[in-house]
Amino acid sequence: MNQRLEKIWDWMAQESIALIMFEDCEERRDQSVRWLSGHPGDALLFISLDRKTLLVPWDLNLAKIYARADLIIPYSDFDRLPVKAIQGAAKKFGIPVGSKIEIPPVTPYPVFLNYVGELTDFDILCHERSAALKVKKFRAIKDGEEIKIYRKAAAITNELIELLEKNVRSGKIKTEADAAMLIELEARRRGCEGTGFETLAAGPDRSFGIHAFPPWTNAPFAGPGLSILDFGLKLGSYTTDVTLTFAREPDAKQEKLLTLVEKAYKLALSMTDNSIPTRIIAAAVDDFFAKAKKHMPHALGHGIGLEEHEFPAIRNRADNNWLLEPGMVFTLEPGLYDPLHGGCRLENDILMTETGPEVLTEAGIIRL
Amino acid sequence: MNQRLEKIWDWMAQESIALIMFEDCEERRDQSVRWLSGHPGDALLFISLDRKTLLVPWDLNLAKIYARADLIIPYSDFDRLPVKAIQGAAKKFGIPVGSKIEIPPVTPYPVFLNYVGELTDFDILCHERSAALKVKKFRAIKDGEEIKIYRKAAAITNELIELLEKNVRSGKIKTEADAAMLIELEARRRGCEGTGFETLAAGPDRSFGIHAFPPWTNAPFAGPGLSILDFGLKLGSYTTDVTLTFAREPDAKQEKLLTLVEKAYKLALSMTDNSIPTRIIAAAVDDFFAKAKKHMPHALGHGIGLEEHEFPAIRNRADNNWLLEPGMVFTLEPGLYDPLHGGCRLENDILMTETGPEVLTEAGIIRL
Repeated sequence: MNQRLEKIWDWMAQESIALIMFEDCEERRDQSVRWLSGHPGDALLFISLDRKTLLVPWDLNLAKIYARADLIIPYSDFDRLPVKAIQGAAKKFGIPVGSKIEIPPVTPYPVFLNYVGELTDFDILCHERSAALKVKKFRAIKDGEEIKIYRKAAAITNELIELLEKNVRSGKIKTEADAAMLIELEARRRGCEGTGFETLAAGPDRSFGIHAFPPWTNAPFAGPGLSILDFGLKLGSYTTDVTLTFAREPDAKQEKLLTLVEKAYKLALSMTDNSIPTRIIAAAVDDFFAKAKKHMPHALGHGIGLEEHEFPAIRNRADNNWLLEPGMVFTLEPGLYDPLHGGCRLENDILMTETGPEVLTEAGIIRL
Repeated sequence: MNQRLEKIWDWMAQESIALIMFEDCEERRDQSVRWLSGHPGDALLFISLDRKTLLVPWDLNLAKIYARADLIIPYSDFDRLPVKAIQGAAKKFGIPVGSKIEIPPVTPYPVFLNYVGELTDFDILCHERSAALKVKKFRAIKDGEEIKIYRKAAAITNELIELLEKNVRSGKIKTEADAAMLIELEARRRGCEGTGFETLAAGPDRSFGIHAFPPWTNAPFAGPGLSILDFGLKLGSYTTDVTLTFAREPDAKQEKLLTLVEKAYKLALSMTDNSIPTRIIAAAVDDFFAKAKKHMPHALGHGIGLEEHEFPAIRNRADNNWLLEPGMVFTLEPGLYDPLHGGCRLENDILMTETGPEVLTEAGIIRL
């Protein structure tokens, strides 16, 4: 954790920033608070140029267990108002009048105006090029400890993939709820915090949705046609993210979707290399689908970590300049969705290493 | 839904706003998109002064089923970029150059600057006093149809409260997971979309946390001491929100927490009246606890609806000016948390009527 803070302190010195605030609140979640302090959420984290940290948690009892910070002051001491907390932190740390204080770049414009109006003693910075962005970029490259967690999380995910396939084949899993509940329970039995996001389990009648709505129901699962199961396990705050497609008695049109998605996945993986921009990989998959007169309505993949969607971006959009670097953990998830014939998606978690991509998870298209 | 739009059109005419954008995206969720269009999420919704609506969904297949809008154009047609979508909507609706276009007040400051830089033909408004805020205020007062859904959701919630108590008493529920999984499954069996938020099930060793972390585990539940179970059922997009405390063999200190919370709840309910500001009710409870040398680290309650926390605010903070009005559905949830002795919270859902508060749910402190 100190190594993480060192990077921020270097940057603060370089940019002459006296104080930085990170904010994890209901309206604006930021897992960087956890990454930098260990505290699992609902808190402000202040970092001062002179190498001190202050956590302002909503729940002091939780902070006493999880948080590592030089100072902990409950949010209620500041009437649960960010402006008062910033003033309090500046006073506590003796921040000189006129200093630069950085607030999160996700701060809404009206809130920013309010801060500027109230905090006239300081130069309030709110811009994209921020410590928050720096931290998100740092988070994209996992260190040895994080990779160890990911290997374990992937191993548990693979156990569940195997169990899910077995129980679908035996008929023990008949509904979306059966699949989703098994994941919830078995994840915790194996020491996971839970799921990284709400499981998406969509039987043949609902698999046309990219993210099925509702996420899972009591509807039949894995009957004739295509069923999608997208889930992630959260271990030590890091989530995996995989998608299985179960295909039973697919007709010709469904078989075509399956084949195209499998080929697209192989194409993407074969291009996964630290010298090829991820935009180019995603564009190649989009082109591949276009040649078959199909269209993938979402990104090819994304980084994973404390959140289910992190850096690097892996999509065919002009503003994407990411390259894959050793230590990055990300997903590839080509998918196609047909309102009449159902959907198909295949998603695995991949670790980039010095010698190329290492596929950590074993999701695939399961033909029943 | 048209009645809802009428209110917005009235306001647009009054404020001379030509176009409004609502945005529901991963970074900034806004259930108003669903409230105004029926579409369950991940979309932009444009409303023009000349009474037209345009939905720009991420998932066209879902929109075709759920959305009611004059026009539906998939987000990928605008390269999934909000600026391009705004330009597209303005063109489609023939919005004159120089017109006011309102964007969500939660738009981050750097994103706002980007919009202003790109959309030079228009006057981009981003302020607290917005259609978004108006809609949130409208949403606080439920109409007849919404109240009907709430009565049904509350009835199902009460069935589950009864079942949970029965299964805890019989020993069928032994762990946090047993309780949480029962809720997940039985909610869907009864036609709910799912849970309105992640269930918080905390056994005696973890109930000191306001929001237990992790939300639920395989740890024992409802053994000696205090256990908290906070859950909500989502029916037709509206969520309930109740908290039970299970007390087994409480010691004198735990018994004191229970008694204080029960009294605080009764005090709050006795003051629930459309003539008393909610800040005063919350302050009375804070004072009551203070006299017993206790401190409640969170708000007394909150509105519920499409989200688990909505208007009205029910908290002791200077900026809270809410009064309770007929049609409002809200919770009262006094709680106390002791790092050594555990926590206790009691939360019910209440409908304000012309003749006073009507408690819809039957949560309480359950002495085992």
